[in-house]
Amino acid sequence: MGQAVRKKPSECIGMKNKTAYAVAVVGATGAVGKEMVSILEERGFPVDTLQLFSSSRSAGTTVTFNDQTLTVKELDENSFTGVDIALFSAGASVSREYATHAVKAGAVVIDNSSAFRMDPEIPLVVPEVNPGDLSSHQGIIANPNCSTIQMVCALKPLHDMARIQRVVVTTFQSVSGTGSDAMAELLEQTQQLLAFKEPTPKVYPHQIAFNVLPHIDDFLPDGYSKEEMKLVNETKKILGDHTIRIAATAVRVPVYVGHAESVNIETDLKITPDAARATLAAFPGIQVFDDPPRKVYPMPLHVAGTDSVFVGRIREDPSLENGLHLWIVADNLRKGAALNAVQIAEKLIDSPEA
Amino acid sequence: MGQAVRKKPSECIGMKNKTAYAVAVVGATGAVGKEMVSILEERGFPVDTLQLFSSSRSAGTTVTFNDQTLTVKELDENSFTGVDIALFSAGASVSREYATHAVKAGAVVIDNSSAFRMDPEIPLVVPEVNPGDLSSHQGIIANPNCSTIQMVCALKPLHDMARIQRVVVTTFQSVSGTGSDAMAELLEQTQQLLAFKEPTPKVYPHQIAFNVLPHIDDFLPDGYSKEEMKLVNETKKILGDHTIRIAATAVRVPVYVGHAESVNIETDLKITPDAARATLAAFPGIQVFDDPPRKVYPMPLHVAGTDSVFVGRIREDPSLENGLHLWIVADNLRKGAALNAVQIAEKLIDSPEA
Repeated sequence: MGQAVRKKPSECIGMKNKTAYAVAVVGATGAVGKEMVSILEERGFPVDTLQLFSSSRSAGTTVTFNDQTLTVKELDENSFTGVDIALFSAGASVSREYATHAVKAGAVVIDNSSAFRMDPEIPLVVPEVNPGDLSSHQGIIANPNCSTIQMVCALKPLHDMARIQRVVVTTFQSVSGTGSDAMAELLEQTQQLLAFKEPTPKVYPHQIAFNVLPHIDDFLPDGYSKEEMKLVNETKKILGDHTIRIAATAVRVPVYVGHAESVNIETDLKITPDAARATLAAFPGIQVFDDPPRKVYPMPLHVAGTDSVFVGRIREDPSLENGLHLWIVADNLRKGAALNAVQIAEKLIDSPEA
Repeated sequence: MGQAVRKKPSECIGMKNKTAYAVAVVGATGAVGKEMVSILEERGFPVDTLQLFSSSRSAGTTVTFNDQTLTVKELDENSFTGVDIALFSAGASVSREYATHAVKAGAVVIDNSSAFRMDPEIPLVVPEVNPGDLSSHQGIIANPNCSTIQMVCALKPLHDMARIQRVVVTTFQSVSGTGSDAMAELLEQTQQLLAFKEPTPKVYPHQIAFNVLPHIDDFLPDGYSKEEMKLVNETKKILGDHTIRIAATAVRVPVYVGHAESVNIETDLKITPDAARATLAAFPGIQVFDDPPRKVYPMPLHVAGTDSVFVGRIREDPSLENGLHLWIVADNLRKGAALNAVQIAEKLIDSPEA
């Protein structure tokens, strides 16, 4: 690992021979932060000490980790002394303000916000897809957007097989992608509607219960939302191919956990559905779940709490010479966020030269 | 109209000079049938007598129409004596069994089922799009599928302007498209989940509350659902252009009323978003609802109970030389079914030669 931290090689040298690591989670009380703590425990990540940070609002909360009760502390510039790995999931502004403090203190930052994703100097990594990009990190590694991670996992083996020319994707994104407040809002609005009360939108601009909103993140002047452009730009960066053409529509649906994506791809070479199924099934982290006559296809309901990217409804697109439809579903808090971040950390400690 | 009923011209001659019509609604207690009765009243359709039919299960129910209380009768072969216009919405098997009885009795059938839609002898009509096709009817006119109607309304003016080559559509379809039982199921499952009870799927193969199902109607051997192929085949027939290539994914979402569609189109000629907005806004039955920075875009919540097809999120697709994205939403029970059927009836009586 020392080699990779090119600008400040001294800062990470300590990680090379460690058997357990000082880990910090920034944003530990959020929907993704909580999953990060759970997944570190579930996967037996070699944690020496775990420190949990949040804003002043949530500081003082307690969290259980490996039978210890940990108190969440308020984040400040000095929070990272002695930390080896800092997992950030507290929004882009917190990452912009504190990630460099963490790096200066000697930590490697794995950042789940959008702050650094498109910085050409900072690797944007899905461990199954572009693990090699980790070797260029200089202290910060960006974790891609939830909707991007699950899509690139399925696109990668097909791109390697037949070169993807164009992708048209429409997403069905759950409210947990927005955070805990949005999950509470869906519940509250549903309760209000069942009691014949007018629901009160707070987190979202419109009622989300029993509705769909074609609006995720802010809109840009060309009419696209930032979420849609994340799917476009992050996918190209992770696949390392800026010639792929991508058109995206991002939609919020009244589902708690699990994002689904309807993905249409055009490839250079023909891929039959059977060949796609075999290739996808052989790719790490993917489960093919595709037997529609038996009512087998991925759904948010069934993937919530799981680690894989599920692909189904695989069929040839007769409107193209070489076209394929996919339906891709994953737990946006786990593979779409916290799990991918922890997998990046696992890669780092497994490959000290990464 | 007499001219059009080519095989049996005598049967409809009576409609030519009438000022009020004997109307029958078959399937009057279903989600669409109820809307048919409401819309006949709302629009002041010149009804002389209204007869309501259902299966034996629902016969005896009463329905209010223009301040009269009408009793729903059980459908039989002799139900159509004296009927001028029969609106069918009781499923394909009922239409297959009874539509010819209605035609023989002298009625014109406007059929909302899939029974006759792809019959080359039977016109499939959206009055704003292909009213001319009405003139070829021989007693039966097919009402297109809900998801098709709203899409072709938006495609038609763009196709006339720039010729559409290819369409990639993903739908977000509400449970009312399945019927009243499905609406009750969404409510029941939501109540069960809020009470921490395991929901029991009955109408759908999986839980629909807080979930999305990439499964509408049965699956065909090539992996497409029948609903997806309705979007493909009906669109080509209504637009009268079998060269358009269409790829569809149909998905059920936990929404009561209103279907949304994410539609990507490739055209021969360039259409700017501004030109598309102007062209769409000028087309009958369409409302452009497109100001994302002000949070203005169509949603099922706002279109339920309205008559227009709403189009928003209109933007250029930079992944194509001539590409455009649209987000199309309409009330699937009204424009997607009952309203379109009543509009067909209005065209018939307005244009006696139709």
